[in-house]
Amino acid sequence: MPDSLKPEALALVLSGRQITRRGFLAKVGQGLAAANVAAGLLKDAVAQQPHLVVPDPPGKKVGYAVVGLGQLAIYQILPAIAQCEKSKVVALVSGHPDKANKLALRYGVDPNNLYNYQNYDSIKDNPEVNVIYIVLPNSMHAEYTIRGLRAGKHVLCEKPMATTPAECQTMIDAARQANRKLMVAYRCRYEPFNQEMIRLAREQELGPVRIIHADAGFNIVDPTQWRLRKSMSGGGSLMDIGIYSLQAARYLSGEEPTEVNAMSYSTPGDPRFQEVEETINFQLRFPSGVLANCTADYSSAYRSHFRAIATKGYFELDPAMSYTGLLMRVNRGNEVEEPAIQPRDHFASEMEHMSQCVMEDKTPLTPGEEGLRDLKIMMAIYEAARTGNTVRL
Amino acid sequence: MPDSLKPEALALVLSGRQITRRGFLAKVGQGLAAANVAAGLLKDAVAQQPHLVVPDPPGKKVGYAVVGLGQLAIYQILPAIAQCEKSKVVALVSGHPDKANKLALRYGVDPNNLYNYQNYDSIKDNPEVNVIYIVLPNSMHAEYTIRGLRAGKHVLCEKPMATTPAECQTMIDAARQANRKLMVAYRCRYEPFNQEMIRLAREQELGPVRIIHADAGFNIVDPTQWRLRKSMSGGGSLMDIGIYSLQAARYLSGEEPTEVNAMSYSTPGDPRFQEVEETINFQLRFPSGVLANCTADYSSAYRSHFRAIATKGYFELDPAMSYTGLLMRVNRGNEVEEPAIQPRDHFASEMEHMSQCVMEDKTPLTPGEEGLRDLKIMMAIYEAARTGNTVRL
Repeated sequence: MPDSLKPEALALVLSGRQITRRGFLAKVGQGLAAANVAAGLLKDAVAQQPHLVVPDPPGKKVGYAVVGLGQLAIYQILPAIAQCEKSKVVALVSGHPDKANKLALRYGVDPNNLYNYQNYDSIKDNPEVNVIYIVLPNSMHAEYTIRGLRAGKHVLCEKPMATTPAECQTMIDAARQANRKLMVAYRCRYEPFNQEMIRLAREQELGPVRIIHADAGFNIVDPTQWRLRKSMSGGGSLMDIGIYSLQAARYLSGEEPTEVNAMSYSTPGDPRFQEVEETINFQLRFPSGVLANCTADYSSAYRSHFRAIATKGYFELDPAMSYTGLLMRVNRGNEVEEPAIQPRDHFASEMEHMSQCVMEDKTPLTPGEEGLRDLKIMMAIYEAARTGNTVRL
Repeated sequence: MPDSLKPEALALVLSGRQITRRGFLAKVGQGLAAANVAAGLLKDAVAQQPHLVVPDPPGKKVGYAVVGLGQLAIYQILPAIAQCEKSKVVALVSGHPDKANKLALRYGVDPNNLYNYQNYDSIKDNPEVNVIYIVLPNSMHAEYTIRGLRAGKHVLCEKPMATTPAECQTMIDAARQANRKLMVAYRCRYEPFNQEMIRLAREQELGPVRIIHADAGFNIVDPTQWRLRKSMSGGGSLMDIGIYSLQAARYLSGEEPTEVNAMSYSTPGDPRFQEVEETINFQLRFPSGVLANCTADYSSAYRSHFRAIATKGYFELDPAMSYTGLLMRVNRGNEVEEPAIQPRDHFASEMEHMSQCVMEDKTPLTPGEEGLRDLKIMMAIYEAARTGNTVRL
């Protein structure tokens, strides 16, 4: 199985923050990011002492099995879960026993709770595991989610939820049949900068939003990675990073798009883009008349920028989806504010939400249905790019 | 004739800089704008002393007749020309004698050189006039440009050049027949911030540009103004402010688009948008694979933002087309610079270029052919928005 390197990890590298096996060094420009730097150094200290078992804070915790130990799991999810009050890692699933053993030691996972892809289904017999967090390549999401649900576990699945709407529907059906929760890991919905953007949009502090810009991309370096194989990724920059732009357009408008236009480009002869698209720009129309212009690409400098333009001003995040260092600006005509928002770890926040939903038997904010909606729209974006016609949803 | 209020003047108001008849007060947030503020105060001082004739600096100057004394002429062009070394105002053309007399006194224009729309053609007998600057509503550009050329004068025409490509072609033909110069007043091409963006793009300091974002718009307030009458404007936000986004995409890519997508919206029942579009988003494809996402609107907060995303970083202007206070940022991965660029008056710069072309018998950087190219593309954008199909150029 290829390394399940997630775009976030790569993006972090590309944004100038070097990631190493032993920890990470956060080089950030914004003062607001100080708290995140501190958190990073803390994680760093933990990472450098593999014998150090992070002690559980008091109180009941939901037990997680993390499936797929790629960069995202190693550098983001496992360190994040160690900070959680309601969530703890109790099991690991990996094809690499050495990696699993090392991480088990670092995070205090019982060696009896290490699984591989062959004995994965036996996780049903492990009462410590409440939630399975799927951090695999996209094409494996459906299978491992469904097997997890059938094992009687709740599932938190990385985005995109799957590679086709049909797979998403099967996953939703499996969750319903198993009477288990299914949540898609849209981390930006759980962190306070994007939440403040949503609040400003909903409360119309600057009047109603009329236009949304959402741009995200990075330069994908390794031509051999799974996300450039269509059979594993389902698509290129749209599925991987454009989904953030699409999400932003949807959660900032608070509506579902009715029409989409798109234009895509892949450099002829570039070995990275033989199967999936390099760049895709798309436009969305929402029922209230909001129009969104979105971008995703795999060949330019890392950046992420969401701007919501309302009648009396505009507000934006730049960067909008990096793990740390998010910056918000609110332009009220002649006055520009940079609200002092206390950052929170995106992954810890999303896992805490999932745990709370499990504890209180509530539906997650981003259930399987939300993942399905994005997949349907992304298929329409591909159709629009392919045909050169506006596609109605 | 309706007041030829230009979008720039309105945008200035909407950006929080109050314009009054007696001068203007620049409230700007960026330190870089200090020089512009000083220039503004100087103009203000001049404006408050209508008896004060601005003395000519030494040296030969090209004589201008300004046609149309609306806000753009009063608050931008006439004050700008007073700063010029190679250009001077020698005649005014207006339907309002009182306005023309007052401005003639302020700027030292010979009272014999005041024309109206009836005796405009007699300007051919005035050897002091070398260039006619057309600052009229769009629908009048073609007629007054052609009459000016037939009077043997060079013509500098505000943008959009006309309301149809056919009109543009007639203007170009008239210039050729008259053997006179015809330049379109694309002020951003002559000011140093946009010029620095173009330099960075051409020299590929951050690698080749792959994606361009260009967003510009403002809230148009007065529903009775000419730019909301299709017969006078030729179109809505696209023709008025979207032309800046289109220009940015073209001059930052350095290429001509081959395909266009578009989506437009006008709020039903809004009296402002009965004849012309409110919002229009468009996508452009360029031959090298550069894709551009552009916006123009007439109902949101004033802003203007151009961002060119290259392989190793990105560079942007925000604001990008205000008269003053432009700000450039260059993001080289983890390092963000704000280059200290010395601002220059946009209108003075463009007029000095025209004067130099006249003096040295050279073709302007933005001749009639450049205006025609934009009109052809804007017609394709309208067609794409109307049909929902990608239009090939």
